[in-house]
Amino acid sequence: MVESLPEQNGPPSERVRVRRLASRARYQRSEVLEILDAGLIAHVGVMTPEGPLVLPMAYGRDEDHIYLHGALANHLLGSGAGQEVCVTVTHLDALVMARTPFHNSMNYRSAVVRGPARRIADGDRKLRALRLITDHIVPNWDTSRPPSASDLRATLVVELPLAEASAKVREGGPKDEPDDMSGPWWAGLVPLTTRFQPPVASPDLRGDTAAPTSITALAGLTPDERPRHQR
Amino acid sequence: MVESLPEQNGPPSERVRVRRLASRARYQRSEVLEILDAGLIAHVGVMTPEGPLVLPMAYGRDEDHIYLHGALANHLLGSGAGQEVCVTVTHLDALVMARTPFHNSMNYRSAVVRGPARRIADGDRKLRALRLITDHIVPNWDTSRPPSASDLRATLVVELPLAEASAKVREGGPKDEPDDMSGPWWAGLVPLTTRFQPPVASPDLRGDTAAPTSITALAGLTPDERPRHQR
Repeated sequence: MVESLPEQNGPPSERVRVRRLASRARYQRSEVLEILDAGLIAHVGVMTPEGPLVLPMAYGRDEDHIYLHGALANHLLGSGAGQEVCVTVTHLDALVMARTPFHNSMNYRSAVVRGPARRIADGDRKLRALRLITDHIVPNWDTSRPPSASDLRATLVVELPLAEASAKVREGGPKDEPDDMSGPWWAGLVPLTTRFQPPVASPDLRGDTAAPTSITALAGLTPDERPRHQR
Repeated sequence: MVESLPEQNGPPSERVRVRRLASRARYQRSEVLEILDAGLIAHVGVMTPEGPLVLPMAYGRDEDHIYLHGALANHLLGSGAGQEVCVTVTHLDALVMARTPFHNSMNYRSAVVRGPARRIADGDRKLRALRLITDHIVPNWDTSRPPSASDLRATLVVELPLAEASAKVREGGPKDEPDDMSGPWWAGLVPLTTRFQPPVASPDLRGDTAAPTSITALAGLTPDERPRHQR
């Protein structure tokens, strides 16, 4: 699906250009989407009268938009008027330990999407967006009780265009000064791995209720490896 | 150390009051600091002329301030004039799978600090802040080559008061509707665990250079469990 969209060699807009360490910039749409798809939460920034505010939120996406939902969206994004937001998703892959703290770093993959967040009023589009958010985390929408009309009324959903997005990736080992290479200091990587643990059934679960395979399949996987919803 | 500071029953300022699901609010200073100390990166939000911008950054702290550094700080926070920022640190502990997507959630611990980020001009204070940032991740400042005068000149460091901070924590299992409890849907938790992997030495490392114990001690630990720098 991704391949049907134009790939870019530069940033889609100036405000998502990577300004520091431009060699780490990734403007290919497929790379941005891969980082978004590997994530479970985004850090969403909005402007408030008391300054910027950044809160963690679940999200989903299709080819054109990121979707955010819930009471949190209501508080942060409820004006419906297209408030500017920034959605950032980061994966931390390793600590990079150099011979001097000045060159310590981290290996990471980070995607940034900037643009207006607009409230979705249409019921069918709202339902579709909620399914995308649910199935982004674990595709279990079809194996749980569908939302009721009152669930839907109580949930606010906003969409943010994916048009203005970029990514930044650091990989590889430490980059030390030539003069430090023969020194007595250690240098290398400390990888970090996040894994799903086996599911723990709710104590009030009906005795004969089995977990759907979408949930049992997670154990031992990293978020990058989890089964994906087919949009 | 933490105990010597006043603990609070309510938010230290209105702009860090938890507005949604207030029962998840944690205003005790010790709880905020514990969440900050368990983290490796913060998501830092600033206002730009093109809207809010959120980027991942390393950080450190003492009893009174959070410290941010680097070229990134330079770009984001370099005005030195006390630009308002929001520093958010989030730990994702579990997916909460309910009987209906409307009640799906995540268990998390999140801390939010809001306030003015001020550039540190004094050389000694800058050096101390850089040590705090370095040792926040892994306490290896004393086992690596000290920064040179030119390293220090090339690094911008800012401080943000810890005065306005709050935390939000969700824990426990799914909370479903009474009517759904006898339904055929699974409910429970999928825990997530992030662990340090064994260190990987840089290929250009001098043959007889051993990793300091601060680094070898990380393997198999979660970020929460890692050895802490004594401030």
